[in-house]
Amino acid sequence: MKEKNLADRDEKYLWHPLTQHKTAASRIGISKAEGALFWDEEGNSYIDGIASWYTAMYGHGNKRIISAMTAQMEQLDFVIFSGFTHEPAVKLSEELIHILPDNQTKIFFNDNGSTAVEAAIKIALQFYHNNNDERDTLIAFEGGFHGDTFGAMSASGISSYNGPFEDFLLKVERIPTPQEDNLDEVVAQLNAIIENNKCAAFVFEPLVQGAAGMKFHSTKGLDALIKKCQEADILCVADEVMTGFGKTGKNFASDYLENKPDIICLSKALTAGMFPLSITSCSQKVYDAFLSDDVSKGFFHSHTYSAHPLGCAAALAGLQLLNSDEIIERRRYIALAHKTFKNKIENHPKVKEVRSKGVILAIDLQVEMERYGNLRNQLYNFFLERGVMLRPLGSTVYVLPPYVIKDEELQKIYNVIGELLESL
Amino acid sequence: MKEKNLADRDEKYLWHPLTQHKTAASRIGISKAEGALFWDEEGNSYIDGIASWYTAMYGHGNKRIISAMTAQMEQLDFVIFSGFTHEPAVKLSEELIHILPDNQTKIFFNDNGSTAVEAAIKIALQFYHNNNDERDTLIAFEGGFHGDTFGAMSASGISSYNGPFEDFLLKVERIPTPQEDNLDEVVAQLNAIIENNKCAAFVFEPLVQGAAGMKFHSTKGLDALIKKCQEADILCVADEVMTGFGKTGKNFASDYLENKPDIICLSKALTAGMFPLSITSCSQKVYDAFLSDDVSKGFFHSHTYSAHPLGCAAALAGLQLLNSDEIIERRRYIALAHKTFKNKIENHPKVKEVRSKGVILAIDLQVEMERYGNLRNQLYNFFLERGVMLRPLGSTVYVLPPYVIKDEELQKIYNVIGELLESL
Repeated sequence: MKEKNLADRDEKYLWHPLTQHKTAASRIGISKAEGALFWDEEGNSYIDGIASWYTAMYGHGNKRIISAMTAQMEQLDFVIFSGFTHEPAVKLSEELIHILPDNQTKIFFNDNGSTAVEAAIKIALQFYHNNNDERDTLIAFEGGFHGDTFGAMSASGISSYNGPFEDFLLKVERIPTPQEDNLDEVVAQLNAIIENNKCAAFVFEPLVQGAAGMKFHSTKGLDALIKKCQEADILCVADEVMTGFGKTGKNFASDYLENKPDIICLSKALTAGMFPLSITSCSQKVYDAFLSDDVSKGFFHSHTYSAHPLGCAAALAGLQLLNSDEIIERRRYIALAHKTFKNKIENHPKVKEVRSKGVILAIDLQVEMERYGNLRNQLYNFFLERGVMLRPLGSTVYVLPPYVIKDEELQKIYNVIGELLESL
Repeated sequence: MKEKNLADRDEKYLWHPLTQHKTAASRIGISKAEGALFWDEEGNSYIDGIASWYTAMYGHGNKRIISAMTAQMEQLDFVIFSGFTHEPAVKLSEELIHILPDNQTKIFFNDNGSTAVEAAIKIALQFYHNNNDERDTLIAFEGGFHGDTFGAMSASGISSYNGPFEDFLLKVERIPTPQEDNLDEVVAQLNAIIENNKCAAFVFEPLVQGAAGMKFHSTKGLDALIKKCQEADILCVADEVMTGFGKTGKNFASDYLENKPDIICLSKALTAGMFPLSITSCSQKVYDAFLSDDVSKGFFHSHTYSAHPLGCAAALAGLQLLNSDEIIERRRYIALAHKTFKNKIENHPKVKEVRSKGVILAIDLQVEMERYGNLRNQLYNFFLERGVMLRPLGSTVYVLPPYVIKDEELQKIYNVIGELLESL
């Protein structure tokens, strides 16, 4: 009897995220990864056009990262992070503070992007609570995405994710993202929200909203909103889970801003696809509000594996690569290649808008479709059948490749997108 | 100039969980771990008496787990779990379903215990939402602990963790844990809650409440509460994050129950201390409520690193060890040694109560103290100074050692506890 393949075995017991199992196609069984490539169990290869959800920026199976993690496992696999510390966490805090915006002075660890945002929201609420100033409202952008736990879901504005739970979320007031032509209006809305609510924090994805469809907004506009919030004594939380570690061209999207966020959330590329680890960094002002002779004013938030040595070792190896000559050259190459391709297709009748920033390229197609509709799935399959893994967000096709993608692999992605445009 | 030690460098940028940094002692810098032992940077050793928060049950630096993870990194480090699958996740689902209670048929992945509970709560709420039956209330035990994200915090009943956030939590009705002498009363309270609320789920740590102080409750009593809830069409969620994988004597605490939970949360020892991974398993009835031609009835909850191949590889290696002859022998040895020590100290005037179940031993001291008071810290330091890492929960000292702890290491823990009792 032939052994069942992975796709068949998968059906039996596994419940996948973001998957309607009644109607979804079978999962593809992946057996190997290297650089920007995957292979399925039949030997077909796929280019990882989104760096596995913006994580594996230095490529799959990166030998430097693997050897750092292996050495760490053998030396010190794990120790709890209450009462104890270890070299990988200390060194990672030193290196991150060195490249984060100057106002960031403290590093708190969590396990993923969602819990980094949870911690940020809890820190903001407790910051005021510790000062006997109870606040209950968050400010967030329309269409933002910050994760799937209840706190993070509250800040998110995408209904397919949090729709069934809308009665159970924190109080959030939403504003549109600032564009070149709406800033006065957005500022007026923000002012009204500030006046009519006890706002604790403004939570936002800086410059690029990822899950919303790689939508960009105005740097000047965001700067104005942060300034307004900080003047009103509202903490500003930059969710850089997607944007962090070089994707927008600078180390962090916040590096484009004049007014620096009080709190920054990091994950995904932090560990280069190798380990669930996240960070909520903050300014000294935020941290100081938790120092007290009263123990209960401390931050009693902890995940078992906080600051796991293996995750820290992966992050340190990733940071060494991020600003290495080789990776900087690749980051520049990809950014330039995106611009060239953008120029080539921007007048195509099936292209509504094309935009790029750093290694992010997004193409809004001139078609009507639902976020999880059939046409979206047709696009997804169109790419897969041609050996390219892209995950259209509704009618937006985006490319966010590993920095180490080869020239011909990147060219193949462009070619397949070109083929798609001709076929629509 | 002498290079600063880890403890000094730690102070500068790190914010630790569960730590009031104004009054806490410096962290101890740990540089190496092996088996049940840690070493600090000065070469002092410490016995890991709580298996690093009940995770590292097969010992630190376990070669079989390390080699499984290293091989996995080189073959396939990471692929997203939407649309794709891989051998480690498929095999782990098969092996877990094999040992989980018979009614469990589906495996959903998350990153830690808190998010496993978060997913369980969301699944329960959406289960009814998908059936057009809106429910808004959770039932939970007094003193339970389920994690630090907003959903998980809601189910938790320990105020030092969720006090500052009580205005922002889901609606929860609490009942005492069932003991030999209060079952009728607890059932009556449960009946009243069921009658007066729209209850979605009963969330509980089965048989042992960990963070509350390793408190035990009645198996028969819990069985009666589950039966009552299931008759009233309320989903029962067993949080086995602490109890899972052999600690209570059986694979899962739920194995002691006649009435099986609808949903089970697993983490911690799942990956043997090596990787943040968690699982929310469920019955076919629960899963089926998410199958629909309407895509939005699916479960749109996803963490980037869900079902990470490295975490699954660690979990598979751990499962192979769990019921190996060698580990079963050690589990029996520890359980018996705990009982012998229990008999020895139970009449000591400074012992209020001593209890054991499987490899869990808990001693309530006959002293008055606050959960995070000075006396608790004195106990903690008393143990550390003698080379033993235990973390008293208020006035409860507990031991939950790695299965691989050596006879003489376990004996040393008992000796140091004996010394403490004499010193009080």
